[in-house]
Amino acid sequence: MTLDRRALLAAGTALLSGNGLVAAASDAAIKPTQNIGKRHRRIATEEAYAVPELVDGVRSGLQSGAKDADTKFWAVLLGENPWGKMVLRRLLDLEQERLAIMDQHGVDMHVLSITVPGPQMFDSATGTRLATVINDRLAEVITRHPQRFAGLAAVAPQDPQNAAKEIERAVTQLHLNGVIINSHTHDEYLDDPKFWPIFEAAAAHQAPIYLHPRAPSKMMLAPFEPYALEHAIWGYQAEAGLHAVRLVMSGVFDRFPNLKIVLGHMGEGVPYWFYRIDYMHRGASRFNWRPQLAKAPSEYFKSNFMITTSGMNWNPVLEFCVNVVGPDNIMFAVDYPYQETPEAVRFMDAAPLSEADRAKIYHGNAERVFRISNT
Amino acid sequence: MTLDRRALLAAGTALLSGNGLVAAASDAAIKPTQNIGKRHRRIATEEAYAVPELVDGVRSGLQSGAKDADTKFWAVLLGENPWGKMVLRRLLDLEQERLAIMDQHGVDMHVLSITVPGPQMFDSATGTRLATVINDRLAEVITRHPQRFAGLAAVAPQDPQNAAKEIERAVTQLHLNGVIINSHTHDEYLDDPKFWPIFEAAAAHQAPIYLHPRAPSKMMLAPFEPYALEHAIWGYQAEAGLHAVRLVMSGVFDRFPNLKIVLGHMGEGVPYWFYRIDYMHRGASRFNWRPQLAKAPSEYFKSNFMITTSGMNWNPVLEFCVNVVGPDNIMFAVDYPYQETPEAVRFMDAAPLSEADRAKIYHGNAERVFRISNT
Repeated sequence: MTLDRRALLAAGTALLSGNGLVAAASDAAIKPTQNIGKRHRRIATEEAYAVPELVDGVRSGLQSGAKDADTKFWAVLLGENPWGKMVLRRLLDLEQERLAIMDQHGVDMHVLSITVPGPQMFDSATGTRLATVINDRLAEVITRHPQRFAGLAAVAPQDPQNAAKEIERAVTQLHLNGVIINSHTHDEYLDDPKFWPIFEAAAAHQAPIYLHPRAPSKMMLAPFEPYALEHAIWGYQAEAGLHAVRLVMSGVFDRFPNLKIVLGHMGEGVPYWFYRIDYMHRGASRFNWRPQLAKAPSEYFKSNFMITTSGMNWNPVLEFCVNVVGPDNIMFAVDYPYQETPEAVRFMDAAPLSEADRAKIYHGNAERVFRISNT
Repeated sequence: MTLDRRALLAAGTALLSGNGLVAAASDAAIKPTQNIGKRHRRIATEEAYAVPELVDGVRSGLQSGAKDADTKFWAVLLGENPWGKMVLRRLLDLEQERLAIMDQHGVDMHVLSITVPGPQMFDSATGTRLATVINDRLAEVITRHPQRFAGLAAVAPQDPQNAAKEIERAVTQLHLNGVIINSHTHDEYLDDPKFWPIFEAAAAHQAPIYLHPRAPSKMMLAPFEPYALEHAIWGYQAEAGLHAVRLVMSGVFDRFPNLKIVLGHMGEGVPYWFYRIDYMHRGASRFNWRPQLAKAPSEYFKSNFMITTSGMNWNPVLEFCVNVVGPDNIMFAVDYPYQETPEAVRFMDAAPLSEADRAKIYHGNAERVFRISNT
């Protein structure tokens, strides 16, 4: 799938002018209205948006009969379902409804990331060009609302060298706060050393990589398809959790000890398995099945990973994670616009945490990891 | 793969005579030796054994270049690795080393189940015949050691009608305590209605089905193979967890409300996802993606599932599960001989539980669910 550069820029202009909506409101015009008793700054760290080119790409894919599971999900967003229409509208909006909802629920900042499947769905050249355009626009929006938005750079991992260059540019010139990668790229995983220039650049520029889920790669998709389990209900964590475990096993964190990966959905289930992964890894060392690692696998999950609360507004898992990964490694997230802001805020406001830990999860950890000013 | 009936029976005799070891010791000859401070009966509920036919079948598979992931794992057990030799020896032994180890660590009873891949690796007719022979032998061993062993019936799901008959026979005539199925059968999952005669028989005879993991089906195996992640370190839970979620989504528990499924390894990760599964299931009802269910998915996990502690000797997950599935739904297990008995006993003895809950998990729940006499 290809898009010419002129089309990209024209679409970009449409986005910047509000994509058909009225002109952007300034921060000053919007006042928090439901903010009573607010004790902490609220930075939401897995907040999705889309660009018209992505929508067009998915639409083309659907029209040409794409069997990609994420494209199939997008049929809901592009169809007549009221929820789908609402989500698509909110994905394409940055400065109108989004800011109003943030204000309504006292969410100070969205850390923005391009939604699934992002530039990863395109061919190498198109994806690489699109990532650059996306990041330029994202930086402009952040410049207009520096207190309301931070952003993760889109990259096209299918061209690792240029993805690495884009990470450098996004951090050093655009001052973006990290990188978003939506799990597999054309059914390939990032533990393959050909992708490691991406990790090298991310580690060098202290850019955390948010490894966001998508539906399982075609190599494992089939048994998820009955009952549509390939989506967020089950397949997302199966895909992203496996991806994360593969990264650890590859030794990439021995090679790049400063590399930081962010996992949504309370770590995509991996923390549940720390004991067993360590146990089995130790035991299997006798069979030479895997590369030697300098540390136990769970140690990497504690030193090189952050997790977020996206879509997991549930005290038992939060308490479990505070216990096993620690309150310094957890960040608040809504998963806007796929999930609802008030639920996430009510959950985090009422969670059985010390106020010190609540402050870390609501904003302190995000400020540290994404280098967001705390003033 | 086929085996003739004479070979099956000859091999059976070899097993019953101790498979080359000295004659079986009677219960009376073995006294607990490391039993100090023991407060509760200890019933271990996921304890594996093998029969020579299974070993022969796997060996034949290896020789003919089988690519099945479990067969590949068995290469370790059939090779020169000291751990593999030890495990194979312990799998094939029932009345010698096993009882001695149980005594040494004060384990009163093993609920025995045929190890992966069991009769499921054979063709329909062979698997069905083998299951019958296995169950006859298992019943004999239990008859000799009624205080030390209970047992789960082997079945060949590839012939659902005969598997259903074998469940009836195993419960009503052999007085076995449930059924063991090692996840997929020739890459098919039990939510397919063609398998439901198995559930009908199990529900009718109050026979819980232990849905034990195996390596992922070939439909999803490939991305697990790098770093040998298809085994217990990650693939087992990915396979068994997906299988369990498919069962719930299929509506089988609305059709058979008394059906009870047992999951090892603290529920194969599913409890971590109760909130999200329910949330996404509720949300997706608007898309008509799945059959209607009478209850929220997590409610079935609480009413129709038991979980065991096999291979998960870790307080954080135990406490989490006591919280979210309740102490009446958790049973103690060692995962003998793949994991070590003293670790599991030390863990359960020291776990931060009330003595009432510890008693439930150590034996009370197993007595209730598997109908094991508590005298």
